[in-house]
Amino acid sequence: MINQTYKEMLKGKSIIREQSEFAAELGKEIGYDNVFDYSLGNPSVPVHDDYTKVMMELLEQESPANLHGYSPSLGITQVRLKVAKSLRERFDIDYDTKHIFMTSGAAGALAHAIRCVTAPGDEVITFAPYFPEYQEYVGKTGAILKVVPANQDDFQINFEAFLEVMNEKVQAVLINTPNNPSGAVYSTETIQKLASILYKKQKEYGHDIFLISDEPYREIIFDKQSVPYPSRYYNNSLSCYSFSKSLSLPGERIGYIAVNPKATDADIISVMCGQISRGIGHNCPASSVQLAVAQVLNKTSNLTVYETNMNLIYDKLVQLGFEVVRPGGTFYIFPKALEEDAKAFCIKARKYNLILVPSDSFGVAGYFRMAYCIDTKKVMRSLEALELFVKEEYGIRS
Amino acid sequence: MINQTYKEMLKGKSIIREQSEFAAELGKEIGYDNVFDYSLGNPSVPVHDDYTKVMMELLEQESPANLHGYSPSLGITQVRLKVAKSLRERFDIDYDTKHIFMTSGAAGALAHAIRCVTAPGDEVITFAPYFPEYQEYVGKTGAILKVVPANQDDFQINFEAFLEVMNEKVQAVLINTPNNPSGAVYSTETIQKLASILYKKQKEYGHDIFLISDEPYREIIFDKQSVPYPSRYYNNSLSCYSFSKSLSLPGERIGYIAVNPKATDADIISVMCGQISRGIGHNCPASSVQLAVAQVLNKTSNLTVYETNMNLIYDKLVQLGFEVVRPGGTFYIFPKALEEDAKAFCIKARKYNLILVPSDSFGVAGYFRMAYCIDTKKVMRSLEALELFVKEEYGIRS
Repeated sequence: MINQTYKEMLKGKSIIREQSEFAAELGKEIGYDNVFDYSLGNPSVPVHDDYTKVMMELLEQESPANLHGYSPSLGITQVRLKVAKSLRERFDIDYDTKHIFMTSGAAGALAHAIRCVTAPGDEVITFAPYFPEYQEYVGKTGAILKVVPANQDDFQINFEAFLEVMNEKVQAVLINTPNNPSGAVYSTETIQKLASILYKKQKEYGHDIFLISDEPYREIIFDKQSVPYPSRYYNNSLSCYSFSKSLSLPGERIGYIAVNPKATDADIISVMCGQISRGIGHNCPASSVQLAVAQVLNKTSNLTVYETNMNLIYDKLVQLGFEVVRPGGTFYIFPKALEEDAKAFCIKARKYNLILVPSDSFGVAGYFRMAYCIDTKKVMRSLEALELFVKEEYGIRS
Repeated sequence: MINQTYKEMLKGKSIIREQSEFAAELGKEIGYDNVFDYSLGNPSVPVHDDYTKVMMELLEQESPANLHGYSPSLGITQVRLKVAKSLRERFDIDYDTKHIFMTSGAAGALAHAIRCVTAPGDEVITFAPYFPEYQEYVGKTGAILKVVPANQDDFQINFEAFLEVMNEKVQAVLINTPNNPSGAVYSTETIQKLASILYKKQKEYGHDIFLISDEPYREIIFDKQSVPYPSRYYNNSLSCYSFSKSLSLPGERIGYIAVNPKATDADIISVMCGQISRGIGHNCPASSVQLAVAQVLNKTSNLTVYETNMNLIYDKLVQLGFEVVRPGGTFYIFPKALEEDAKAFCIKARKYNLILVPSDSFGVAGYFRMAYCIDTKKVMRSLEALELFVKEEYGIRS
């Protein structure tokens, strides 16, 4: 008989999807080039040329049995070794093959990591604003997601609120830096403070608390800053990565979990993830994609367009009087809406062909997200529409 | 804190893996070419040339955003349409795009199908001998796998035993034809009888019972026979397919669920599977692999080697006096061991460099499985070793 839980899920519709579908429909009427579609976080830059080159070479030269044959459920050993080596050199953490588990992107990494370090009924804490799919990744394990209210000054962590939510049922804390939707990058100070609280709470509660760090935007950083790597500050860390954004291949579903070698049970967490894979039929990312990515680990697509877009949008928002925190990375910005009801604000924007996402499903009221992974010329045209929108609807003049 | 269920799983080791690892170790000593390794169902023939050609063309000509961009969680629409069309033409069932859900191989298909039509506590029936991973695919949803004892005459269904196991908690019946490990192909008569019982029981219990049909070996059929397609005989059918064997690309993790259009809720089962994907972070098979496979749907690798190997092995087994059912397809054969303890039999065989898998984990005692997806010349050499083994250890002369 049809499962009622999943059937019920069909009734809900994500607001991101709703806006994206509206954009597609509008595109049919007025031409998609005239729709300023900021709804989806879908990378706009092409894959790195070297990836294509490597894949062509593999197809020409590698034996089909190696290229398309079964991968171990933990990932191809040589691929894991290369990922470990790359991370070791970059972050000075003593990763080895056994600490790497290859996944279907960051989504697969998070779903495995959460299953690995929680049991049904446990609590997992995350911080608003947060990626709405965390509800699914956590909830479907049987664990419970608890959300700490946002620090609206700068979208760093609201530590006071965190300490109020913290309790001994919490087995994992889930962070996302650089952050979707705010674009905020947690400072070294933020991560150090978080780590020090977690160390203290582990002692107080007498059990491990894992830090699950969602890092698909690790390579999209502005102002030539360096981003602190959370695992360097806390031993019980599981770093969840995706090549979706760095190499622009989100459909290929490739990423990994890197287990801090000093974590409790560090030597068996990858193997446990392999067991988790069995039950969900995931098995492994595509073998050819694993082999190709392993040869371009330290490359990225040309990601500069995102910074260009951010600067254009941020400056215009400030000029128009929006309250907005300047993003440190990602391809998102998260300004305060011009009225309390963010959804109403976004619906009004549709009239100007502006497709924005209201903030409520990210765990904060009264904001909106713009995913500016689109062409810069379109961004420029969209800013004229934005100016018209706020002037006509809210009487704001720059 | 580390999940204890998955940690406990590390203690068990599959006998297939144990034998396969023994084969690898032995290979290091005597050269793998001298190890007659029948442990793993890993296709030995190369991928179809057209797959490689299509993938090269896609890399050269397709826009990176289409080739590597996000796939909808149900699969790329054009790919689903092509799969539906191919199945419609081949099996005369009125499949449409909405009935196809793209998966990570048959494993992903089964795990989704089971989650979709059961709730925790429900029962799922399968028939011995069966693929041991069914325990995980079913058990990890919270449902319970009930195994019907084998019909050892011909490895068709033991209907008497089936009716004893059947009860109103059963929400799904899981079949695998052509069968791993027996190589048996269910006859039209078997499938018709099964369907008629299921129709009767649906009425009796007042709820749907889904037939989940695991069909990765659909294309590996001997003696030019045609194989009945289970979904033609029963409306509530979910056909789970993988291209792993037909195209020899098991590592690329690509397959599908085809929902019979006459099934209850046929129009929403794929969409529900998309919801299931969210919670396990699976999302979709690799986009480039979906696009490439869609262009070679009706091709297969050269699969004749499996029939050649089967005939050689079957004839020798018969000649040596083994009780064995002649396989109708797959690349497996499942003879009766020469002593009651199949494991002891397989351990003794190691001395002759023969790596066989004892039958216990397949739900039958006293048999062994040979996966003859290996080079034919090696098969011929292995048969000499087999002859020596049975003569020296069991005094049987041909």
